[in-house]
Amino acid sequence: MNLKALHQVTYGLYVVTSAKGAKLSGQIANTVFQVTSQPPAVAVCLNKQNLTHEFIHDSRVFAASVLSQDTPLSFIGTFGFKSGRDIDKFAQVNYKIGEIGAPIVLDHTLAYLGVRVTNEVDVGTHTTFIGEVVEAEQVKQGQPMTYAYYHEVKRGSTPKTAPVFIEEKKQVKKMAKYECSVCGYVYDPELGDPDGGIAPGTPFEQIPDDWACPVCGAGKDQFEKMDEG
Amino acid sequence: MNLKALHQVTYGLYVVTSAKGAKLSGQIANTVFQVTSQPPAVAVCLNKQNLTHEFIHDSRVFAASVLSQDTPLSFIGTFGFKSGRDIDKFAQVNYKIGEIGAPIVLDHTLAYLGVRVTNEVDVGTHTTFIGEVVEAEQVKQGQPMTYAYYHEVKRGSTPKTAPVFIEEKKQVKKMAKYECSVCGYVYDPELGDPDGGIAPGTPFEQIPDDWACPVCGAGKDQFEKMDEG
Repeated sequence: MNLKALHQVTYGLYVVTSAKGAKLSGQIANTVFQVTSQPPAVAVCLNKQNLTHEFIHDSRVFAASVLSQDTPLSFIGTFGFKSGRDIDKFAQVNYKIGEIGAPIVLDHTLAYLGVRVTNEVDVGTHTTFIGEVVEAEQVKQGQPMTYAYYHEVKRGSTPKTAPVFIEEKKQVKKMAKYECSVCGYVYDPELGDPDGGIAPGTPFEQIPDDWACPVCGAGKDQFEKMDEG
Repeated sequence: MNLKALHQVTYGLYVVTSAKGAKLSGQIANTVFQVTSQPPAVAVCLNKQNLTHEFIHDSRVFAASVLSQDTPLSFIGTFGFKSGRDIDKFAQVNYKIGEIGAPIVLDHTLAYLGVRVTNEVDVGTHTTFIGEVVEAEQVKQGQPMTYAYYHEVKRGSTPKTAPVFIEEKKQVKKMAKYECSVCGYVYDPELGDPDGGIAPGTPFEQIPDDWACPVCGAGKDQFEKMDEG
Protein backbone atom coordinates (compact mmCIF):
# COMPACT_ATOMS: atom_id res chain seq x y z
CA MET A 1 0.00 0.00 0.00
CA ASN A 2 1.37 3.39 -0.99
CA LEU A 3 -0.56 6.21 0.64
CA LYS A 4 1.11 8.73 -1.66
CA ALA A 5 -1.69 7.73 -4.03
CA LEU A 6 -3.80 10.08 -1.90
CA HIS A 7 -1.63 12.98 -3.06
CA GLN A 8 -3.24 12.63 -6.48
CA VAL A 9 -6.68 13.59 -5.17
CA THR A 10 -7.49 17.14 -6.30
CA TYR A 11 -8.81 19.83 -3.98
CA GLY A 12 -9.40 23.56 -3.91
CA LEU A 13 -8.51 25.82 -1.01
CA TYR A 14 -11.11 27.60 1.12
CA VAL A 15 -11.59 29.66 4.25
CA VAL A 16 -14.33 27.96 6.24
CA THR A 17 -15.88 30.19 8.91
CA SER A 18 -18.50 30.15 11.62
CA ALA A 19 -19.69 32.18 14.61
CA LYS A 20 -20.65 31.63 18.21
CA GLY A 21 -22.49 34.67 19.53
CA ALA A 22 -20.22 37.60 18.74
CA LYS A 23 -17.14 35.38 18.42
CA LEU A 24 -15.92 34.55 14.94
CA SER A 25 -13.79 31.66 13.80
CA GLY A 26 -12.26 30.63 10.51
CA GLN A 27 -9.74 28.17 9.14
CA ILE A 28 -8.26 26.95 5.88
CA ALA A 29 -9.83 23.77 4.51
CA ASN A 30 -9.45 21.93 1.24
CA THR A 31 -12.27 19.41 1.60
CA VAL A 32 -15.26 21.36 0.34
CA PHE A 33 -17.41 19.48 -2.16
CA GLN A 34 -20.93 19.49 -3.53
CA VAL A 35 -23.13 16.53 -2.57
CA THR A 36 -26.43 17.32 -4.32
CA SER A 37 -27.69 19.89 -6.81
CA GLN A 38 -31.36 19.79 -5.79
CA PRO A 39 -31.35 21.17 -3.19
CA PRO A 40 -27.82 22.55 -3.56
CA ALA A 41 -25.82 21.00 -0.73
CA VAL A 42 -22.14 20.81 0.15
CA ALA A 43 -19.92 18.97 2.62
CA VAL A 44 -16.77 19.98 4.46
CA CYS A 45 -14.49 17.84 6.63
CA LEU A 46 -12.85 19.46 9.68
CA ASN A 47 -10.63 18.30 12.52
CA LYS A 48 -12.38 18.02 15.86
CA GLN A 49 -9.56 19.94 17.56
CA ASN A 50 -10.21 23.09 15.58
CA LEU A 51 -12.19 26.02 17.01
CA THR A 52 -14.16 26.38 13.78
CA HIS A 53 -15.31 22.79 14.22
CA GLU A 54 -16.67 23.68 17.67
CA PHE A 55 -18.46 26.78 16.35
CA ILE A 56 -20.08 24.92 13.43
CA HIS A 57 -21.12 22.09 15.72
CA ASP A 58 -22.82 24.59 18.04
CA SER A 59 -24.25 27.11 15.54
CA ARG A 60 -25.13 24.68 12.72
CA VAL A 61 -24.01 27.20 10.09
CA PHE A 62 -20.83 27.82 8.16
CA ALA A 63 -19.56 29.83 5.23
CA ALA A 64 -16.89 28.83 2.73
CA SER A 65 -14.91 31.34 0.66
CA VAL A 66 -13.18 30.02 -2.47
CA LEU A 67 -9.62 31.39 -2.44
CA SER A 68 -8.00 32.68 -5.62
CA GLN A 69 -4.72 31.35 -6.96
CA ASP A 70 -2.93 34.59 -6.04
CA THR A 71 -3.77 34.36 -2.32
CA PRO A 72 -0.55 35.17 -0.40
CA LEU A 73 0.97 32.44 1.74
CA SER A 74 0.82 34.76 4.77
CA PHE A 75 -2.99 34.86 4.53
CA ILE A 76 -3.16 31.08 4.32
CA GLY A 77 -0.73 30.93 7.23
CA THR A 78 -2.90 33.12 9.45
CA PHE A 79 -6.06 31.13 8.80
CA GLY A 80 -4.40 27.75 8.45
CA PHE A 81 -1.67 27.56 11.06
CA LYS A 82 -2.87 29.72 13.90
CA SER A 83 -5.74 29.13 16.26
CA GLY A 84 -8.64 31.48 16.84
CA ARG A 85 -8.12 30.61 20.50
CA ASP A 86 -4.85 32.60 20.39
CA ILE A 87 -5.36 35.40 17.88
CA ASP A 88 -8.21 37.36 16.29
CA LYS A 89 -7.91 36.18 12.69
CA PHE A 90 -10.52 38.69 11.56
CA ALA A 91 -8.74 41.81 12.88
CA GLN A 92 -7.06 42.69 9.58
CA VAL A 93 -9.37 41.01 7.12
CA ASN A 94 -12.30 42.31 5.08
CA TYR A 95 -15.41 40.34 5.90
CA LYS A 96 -19.13 40.67 6.31
CA ILE A 97 -21.65 38.79 8.42
CA GLY A 98 -23.75 36.65 6.11
CA GLU A 99 -27.51 36.13 6.17
CA ILE A 100 -27.14 33.07 8.35
CA GLY A 101 -24.76 34.67 10.83
CA ALA A 102 -21.47 33.15 9.71
CA PRO A 103 -18.72 35.63 8.79
CA ILE A 104 -17.80 35.67 5.10
CA VAL A 105 -14.17 36.44 4.32
CA LEU A 106 -13.96 38.69 1.23
CA ASP A 107 -10.19 39.07 0.83
CA HIS A 108 -8.74 36.84 -1.93
CA THR A 109 -12.22 35.38 -2.41
CA LEU A 110 -13.68 34.44 -5.80
CA ALA A 111 -17.03 33.24 -4.50
CA TYR A 112 -18.66 32.21 -1.25
CA LEU A 113 -21.29 29.84 0.05
CA GLY A 114 -23.38 30.10 3.22
CA VAL A 115 -24.54 26.73 4.49
CA ARG A 116 -27.03 25.45 7.08
CA VAL A 117 -25.86 22.12 8.48
CA THR A 118 -28.28 19.23 8.05
CA ASN A 119 -25.99 16.25 8.78
CA GLU A 120 -22.96 15.80 10.95
CA VAL A 121 -20.98 12.60 10.35
CA ASP A 122 -18.38 11.47 12.87
CA VAL A 123 -15.39 10.14 10.90
CA GLY A 124 -12.94 9.61 13.76
CA THR A 125 -10.47 12.47 14.13
CA HIS A 126 -12.67 14.63 11.90
CA THR A 127 -16.33 15.47 11.35
CA THR A 128 -17.94 15.76 7.93
CA PHE A 129 -20.52 18.56 8.04
CA ILE A 130 -23.14 18.39 5.30
CA GLY A 131 -25.61 21.19 4.69
CA GLU A 132 -27.84 23.11 2.34
CA VAL A 133 -26.45 26.13 0.49
CA VAL A 134 -28.71 29.06 1.47
CA GLU A 135 -26.59 31.95 0.22
CA ALA A 136 -24.06 32.04 -2.61
CA GLU A 137 -22.39 34.84 -4.54
CA GLN A 138 -19.53 35.41 -6.91
CA VAL A 139 -17.13 38.11 -5.71
CA LYS A 140 -14.61 38.44 -8.54
CA GLN A 141 -13.23 36.68 -11.58
CA GLY A 142 -10.13 34.55 -11.28
CA GLN A 143 -8.64 31.10 -11.03
CA PRO A 144 -9.41 29.13 -7.88
CA MET A 145 -6.38 28.09 -5.86
CA THR A 146 -5.93 24.35 -6.08
CA TYR A 147 -4.26 22.41 -3.32
CA ALA A 148 -1.73 21.13 -5.87
CA TYR A 149 -0.86 24.69 -6.89
CA TYR A 150 -0.47 25.65 -3.24
CA HIS A 151 1.99 22.79 -2.77
CA GLU A 152 3.86 22.79 -6.04
CA VAL A 153 4.02 26.44 -7.00
CA LYS A 154 3.66 28.22 -3.69
CA ARG A 155 5.31 25.38 -1.73
CA GLY A 156 2.84 25.68 1.12
CA SER A 157 2.86 23.21 3.97
CA THR A 158 0.10 21.19 5.61
CA PRO A 159 -0.79 21.26 9.32
CA LYS A 160 -0.88 17.93 11.11
CA THR A 161 -4.60 18.37 11.81
CA ALA A 162 -5.52 18.40 8.09
CA PRO A 163 -7.22 15.34 6.62
CA VAL A 164 -4.58 15.15 3.94
CA PHE A 165 -1.52 15.28 6.17
CA ILE A 166 1.01 12.56 5.33
CA GLU A 167 4.34 12.66 7.06
CA GLU A 168 7.08 13.12 4.51
CA LYS A 169 10.35 11.34 4.99
CA LYS A 170 13.09 13.90 5.25
CA GLN A 171 15.26 13.88 2.19
CA VAL A 172 18.99 13.38 2.03
CA LYS A 173 20.47 16.41 0.28
CA LYS A 174 23.82 18.16 0.29
CA MET A 175 22.37 21.68 0.46
CA ALA A 176 20.82 22.19 3.87
CA LYS A 177 17.10 22.79 4.01
CA TYR A 178 15.52 24.30 7.09
CA GLU A 179 12.10 23.48 8.42
CA CYS A 180 9.82 25.80 10.34
CA SER A 181 9.16 24.16 13.70
CA VAL A 182 5.79 25.92 13.96
CA CYS A 183 4.12 25.04 10.66
CA GLY A 184 6.44 22.66 8.83
CA TYR A 185 7.25 24.99 5.92
CA VAL A 186 10.55 23.95 4.37
CA TYR A 187 13.05 26.58 3.23
CA ASP A 188 14.89 25.16 0.23
CA PRO A 189 17.98 27.25 -0.63
CA GLU A 190 17.74 26.17 -4.26
CA LEU A 191 14.36 27.87 -4.53
CA GLY A 192 14.77 30.69 -2.02
CA ASP A 193 11.69 32.73 -1.07
CA PRO A 194 11.22 35.20 -3.94
CA ASP A 195 7.94 36.55 -2.48
CA GLY A 196 9.87 37.37 0.69
CA GLY A 197 12.78 38.97 -1.16
CA ILE A 198 15.14 35.97 -0.88
CA ALA A 199 16.65 35.03 -4.24
CA PRO A 200 16.96 31.38 -5.31
CA GLY A 201 20.36 30.03 -4.31
CA THR A 202 20.51 31.88 -0.99
CA PRO A 203 21.75 29.61 1.84
CA PHE A 204 19.57 29.76 4.95
CA GLU A 205 22.45 31.21 6.95
CA GLN A 206 22.56 34.28 4.69
CA ILE A 207 18.91 35.20 5.06
CA PRO A 208 18.48 38.46 7.06
CA ASP A 209 17.44 37.94 10.68
CA ASP A 210 14.16 39.81 10.24
CA TRP A 211 12.92 37.35 7.63
CA ALA A 212 9.90 35.37 8.75
CA CYS A 213 8.27 32.12 7.71
CA PRO A 214 6.14 32.93 4.64
CA VAL A 215 3.39 30.61 5.86
CA CYS A 216 3.01 31.18 9.59
CA GLY A 217 5.16 34.24 10.27
CA ALA A 218 7.45 32.47 12.76
CA GLY A 219 10.92 34.06 13.15
CA LYS A 220 14.05 32.72 11.51
CA ASP A 221 15.17 31.35 14.90
CA GLN A 222 12.18 28.98 14.85
CA PHE A 223 13.68 27.10 11.91
CA GLU A 224 15.56 23.86 12.36
CA LYS A 225 18.17 22.39 10.05
CA MET A 226 16.85 19.27 8.43
CA ASP A 227 18.48 15.91 8.86
CA GLU A 228 21.05 15.29 6.16
CA GLY A 229 21.72 11.73 6.61
CA MET B 1 -28.24 33.81 -4.47
CA ASN B 2 -26.02 32.89 -7.41
CA LEU B 3 -25.41 29.17 -7.58
CA LYS B 4 -22.66 29.70 -10.13
CA ALA B 5 -20.52 30.24 -7.03
CA LEU B 6 -20.52 26.43 -6.85
CA HIS B 7 -18.63 26.34 -10.15
CA GLN B 8 -15.59 27.67 -8.28
CA VAL B 9 -15.31 24.54 -6.15
CA THR B 10 -12.36 22.46 -7.37
CA TYR B 11 -12.54 18.75 -8.03
CA GLY B 12 -10.53 16.01 -9.66
CA LEU B 13 -11.98 13.36 -11.97
CA TYR B 14 -12.15 9.68 -11.04
CA VAL B 15 -13.53 6.32 -12.12
CA VAL B 16 -15.34 4.89 -9.12
CA THR B 17 -15.97 1.15 -9.37
CA SER B 18 -17.54 -1.71 -7.48
CA ALA B 19 -18.63 -5.32 -7.95
CA LYS B 20 -21.63 -7.49 -7.19
CA GLY B 21 -20.67 -11.12 -7.53
CA ALA B 22 -19.10 -11.41 -10.99
CA LYS B 23 -20.77 -8.22 -12.21
CA LEU B 24 -18.65 -5.10 -12.40
CA SER B 25 -19.75 -1.49 -12.41
CA GLY B 26 -17.98 1.83 -12.74
CA GLN B 27 -18.78 5.48 -13.27
CA ILE B 28 -17.11 8.85 -13.47
CA ALA B 29 -17.22 10.88 -10.27
CA ASN B 30 -15.59 14.12 -9.22
CA THR B 31 -16.46 14.10 -5.52
CA VAL B 32 -13.65 12.01 -4.05
CA PHE B 33 -12.02 13.53 -0.97
CA GLN B 34 -9.99 12.50 2.04
CA VAL B 35 -11.72 12.73 5.42
CA THR B 36 -9.04 11.52 7.85
CA SER B 37 -5.36 10.61 7.67
CA GLN B 38 -5.33 8.21 10.64
CA PRO B 39 -6.74 5.86 9.58
CA PRO B 40 -6.62 6.99 5.95
CA ALA B 41 -10.25 7.42 4.91
CA VAL B 42 -12.01 8.95 1.92
CA ALA B 43 -15.54 9.88 0.89
CA VAL B 44 -17.34 9.80 -2.44
CA CYS B 45 -20.79 11.12 -3.31
CA LEU B 46 -22.89 9.20 -5.86
CA ASN B 47 -26.39 9.48 -7.31
CA LYS B 48 -28.83 6.88 -6.05
CA GLN B 49 -29.96 6.12 -9.61
CA ASN B 50 -26.53 4.87 -10.66
CA LEU B 51 -25.70 1.16 -10.83
CA THR B 52 -22.35 1.75 -9.11
CA HIS B 53 -24.27 3.23 -6.17
CA GLU B 54 -26.29 0.00 -5.91
CA PHE B 55 -23.16 -2.17 -6.07
CA ILE B 56 -21.31 -0.16 -3.40
CA HIS B 57 -24.37 -0.15 -1.17
CA ASP B 58 -24.56 -3.96 -1.43
CA SER B 59 -20.85 -4.91 -1.43
CA ARG B 60 -19.57 -2.18 0.94
CA VAL B 61 -16.40 -1.77 -1.13
CA PHE B 62 -15.32 0.57 -3.91
CA ALA B 63 -12.19 1.57 -5.79
CA ALA B 64 -11.35 5.00 -7.18
CA SER B 65 -8.87 5.58 -10.01
CA VAL B 66 -7.43 9.08 -10.38
CA LEU B 67 -7.65 10.01 -14.07
CA SER B 68 -4.82 11.81 -15.80
CA GLN B 69 -5.24 15.12 -17.61
CA ASP B 70 -4.79 13.43 -20.99
CA THR B 71 -7.73 11.03 -20.55
CA PRO B 72 -9.72 11.09 -23.82
CA LEU B 73 -13.27 12.43 -23.75
CA SER B 74 -14.51 9.15 -25.23
CA PHE B 75 -13.29 7.25 -22.14
CA ILE B 76 -15.03 9.72 -19.84
CA GLY B 77 -18.11 9.42 -22.03
CA THR B 78 -18.24 5.64 -21.71
CA PHE B 79 -17.94 5.65 -17.94
CA GLY B 80 -19.81 8.91 -17.35
CA PHE B 81 -22.74 8.94 -19.74
CA LYS B 82 -23.64 5.32 -20.25
CA SER B 83 -25.14 2.88 -17.80
CA GLY B 84 -23.66 -0.45 -16.81
CA ARG B 85 -27.25 -1.68 -17.10
CA ASP B 86 -26.97 -1.25 -20.91
CA ILE B 87 -23.35 -1.89 -21.82
CA ASP B 88 -20.29 -3.70 -20.45
CA LYS B 89 -18.03 -0.76 -19.66
CA PHE B 90 -15.13 -3.07 -18.84
CA ALA B 91 -15.07 -4.92 -22.19
CA GLN B 92 -12.36 -2.74 -23.74
CA VAL B 93 -10.61 -1.45 -20.63
CA ASN B 94 -7.52 -2.66 -18.78
CA TYR B 95 -8.41 -3.44 -15.20
CA LYS B 96 -7.63 -5.80 -12.38
CA ILE B 97 -9.65 -7.07 -9.46
CA GLY B 98 -8.33 -5.47 -6.30
CA GLU B 99 -7.69 -7.10 -2.93
CA ILE B 100 -11.16 -6.17 -1.72
CA GLY B 101 -12.95 -7.38 -4.84
CA ALA B 102 -13.66 -4.09 -6.55
CA PRO B 103 -12.34 -3.75 -10.11
CA ILE B 104 -9.55 -1.22 -10.52
CA VAL B 105 -9.45 0.59 -13.87
CA LEU B 106 -5.82 1.00 -15.00
CA ASP B 107 -6.25 2.92 -18.27
CA HIS B 108 -5.51 6.66 -17.92
CA THR B 109 -4.98 6.08 -14.19
CA LEU B 110 -2.30 7.85 -12.13
CA ALA B 111 -3.13 6.17 -8.83
CA TYR B 112 -5.90 4.16 -7.24
CA LEU B 113 -7.51 3.60 -3.87
CA GLY B 114 -9.44 0.57 -2.62
CA VAL B 115 -11.92 1.44 0.10
CA ARG B 116 -14.06 -0.48 2.62
CA VAL B 117 -17.22 1.49 3.41
CA THR B 118 -17.73 2.35 7.08
CA ASN B 119 -20.43 5.04 6.81
CA GLU B 120 -23.21 5.67 4.35
CA VAL B 121 -24.88 9.07 4.59
CA ASP B 122 -28.20 9.73 2.86
CA VAL B 123 -28.03 13.22 1.35
CA GLY B 124 -31.27 13.20 -0.63
CA THR B 125 -30.74 12.43 -4.31
CA HIS B 126 -27.23 11.16 -3.49
CA THR B 127 -25.41 9.05 -0.93
CA THR B 128 -22.06 9.96 0.57
CA PHE B 129 -20.05 6.77 1.08
CA ILE B 130 -17.21 7.08 3.60
CA GLY B 131 -14.65 4.36 4.10
CA GLU B 132 -11.17 3.30 5.06
CA VAL B 133 -8.45 3.10 2.41
CA VAL B 134 -7.17 -0.49 2.50
CA GLU B 135 -5.22 -0.57 -0.74
CA ALA B 136 -3.50 2.26 -2.58
CA GLU B 137 -0.90 2.40 -5.34
CA GLN B 138 0.59 4.85 -7.79
CA VAL B 139 0.39 3.66 -11.39
CA LYS B 140 2.25 6.34 -13.35
CA GLN B 141 3.47 9.90 -13.18
CA GLY B 142 1.33 12.71 -14.55
CA GLN B 143 -1.01 15.57 -13.85
CA PRO B 144 -4.41 14.64 -12.42
CA MET B 145 -7.38 15.73 -14.51
CA THR B 146 -9.24 18.51 -12.75
CA TYR B 147 -12.92 19.04 -13.28
CA ALA B 148 -12.17 22.62 -14.38
CA TYR B 149 -9.72 21.35 -17.01
CA TYR B 150 -12.31 18.86 -18.22
CA HIS B 151 -14.80 21.71 -18.66
CA GLU B 152 -12.61 24.53 -19.87
CA VAL B 153 -9.99 22.80 -21.98
CA LYS B 154 -11.69 19.60 -23.03
CA ARG B 155 -15.19 21.17 -22.95
CA GLY B 156 -16.73 18.11 -21.39
CA SER B 157 -20.34 18.08 -20.30
CA THR B 158 -22.01 17.03 -17.05
CA PRO B 159 -24.77 14.43 -16.72
CA LYS B 160 -27.93 15.52 -14.93
CA THR B 161 -27.32 12.92 -12.21
CA ALA B 162 -24.02 14.54 -11.12
CA PRO B 163 -23.96 16.47 -7.83
CA VAL B 164 -22.52 19.47 -9.64
CA PHE B 165 -25.07 19.68 -12.44
CA ILE B 166 -26.41 23.21 -12.91
CA GLU B 167 -28.62 23.88 -15.88
CA GLU B 168 -26.99 26.45 -18.13
CA LYS B 169 -29.11 29.04 -19.83
CA LYS B 170 -28.73 28.69 -23.55
CA GLN B 171 -26.78 31.56 -25.01
CA VAL B 172 -27.92 33.86 -27.78
CA LYS B 173 -25.32 33.67 -30.55
CA LYS B 174 -25.30 34.21 -34.26
CA MET B 175 -23.30 31.08 -35.09
CA ALA B 176 -25.44 28.05 -34.44
CA LYS B 177 -24.28 25.67 -31.75
CA TYR B 178 -25.63 22.14 -31.60
CA GLU B 179 -26.26 20.18 -28.45
CA CYS B 180 -26.05 16.41 -28.07
CA SER B 181 -29.46 15.24 -26.94
CA VAL B 182 -27.92 12.25 -25.18
CA CYS B 183 -25.25 13.82 -23.00
CA GLY B 184 -25.56 17.59 -23.37
CA TYR B 185 -22.18 18.13 -25.08
CA VAL B 186 -22.30 21.37 -27.06
CA TYR B 187 -20.67 21.59 -30.48
CA ASP B 188 -19.43 25.15 -30.90
CA PRO B 189 -18.44 25.86 -34.53
CA GLU B 190 -15.96 28.51 -33.37
CA LEU B 191 -14.00 25.81 -31.55
CA GLY B 192 -14.69 22.78 -33.74
CA ASP B 193 -13.62 19.36 -32.44
CA PRO B 194 -9.90 19.15 -33.18
CA ASP B 195 -9.56 15.77 -31.39
CA GLY B 196 -12.23 14.42 -33.74
CA GLY B 197 -10.64 15.93 -36.84
CA ILE B 198 -13.01 18.91 -37.12
CA ALA B 199 -11.15 22.20 -37.48
CA PRO B 200 -12.22 25.32 -35.58
CA GLY B 201 -14.62 27.37 -37.70
CA THR B 202 -16.43 24.36 -39.18
CA PRO B 203 -20.22 24.87 -39.19
CA PHE B 204 -22.12 21.90 -37.78
CA GLU B 205 -23.78 21.32 -41.15
CA GLN B 206 -20.38 20.67 -42.78
CA ILE B 207 -19.27 17.98 -40.32
CA PRO B 208 -19.11 14.51 -42.00
CA ASP B 209 -22.08 12.28 -41.22
CA ASP B 210 -19.91 9.64 -39.55
CA TRP B 211 -18.72 12.08 -36.90
CA ALA B 212 -19.86 11.16 -33.39
CA CYS B 213 -20.24 13.03 -30.12
CA PRO B 214 -16.76 13.15 -28.54
CA VAL B 215 -18.24 12.54 -25.09
CA CYS B 216 -20.91 9.88 -25.45
CA GLY B 217 -20.47 8.60 -29.00
CA ALA B 218 -23.99 9.53 -30.12
CA GLY B 219 -24.40 10.05 -33.87
CA LYS B 220 -24.56 13.44 -35.56
CA ASP B 221 -28.31 13.00 -36.02
CA GLN B 222 -28.73 13.02 -32.25
CA PHE B 223 -27.66 16.67 -32.13
CA GLU B 224 -30.20 19.49 -31.88
CA LYS B 225 -29.72 23.05 -32.98
CA MET B 226 -29.63 25.33 -29.97
CA ASP B 227 -32.12 28.10 -29.45
CA GLU B 228 -30.88 31.37 -30.92
CA GLY B 229 -33.25 33.64 -29.18
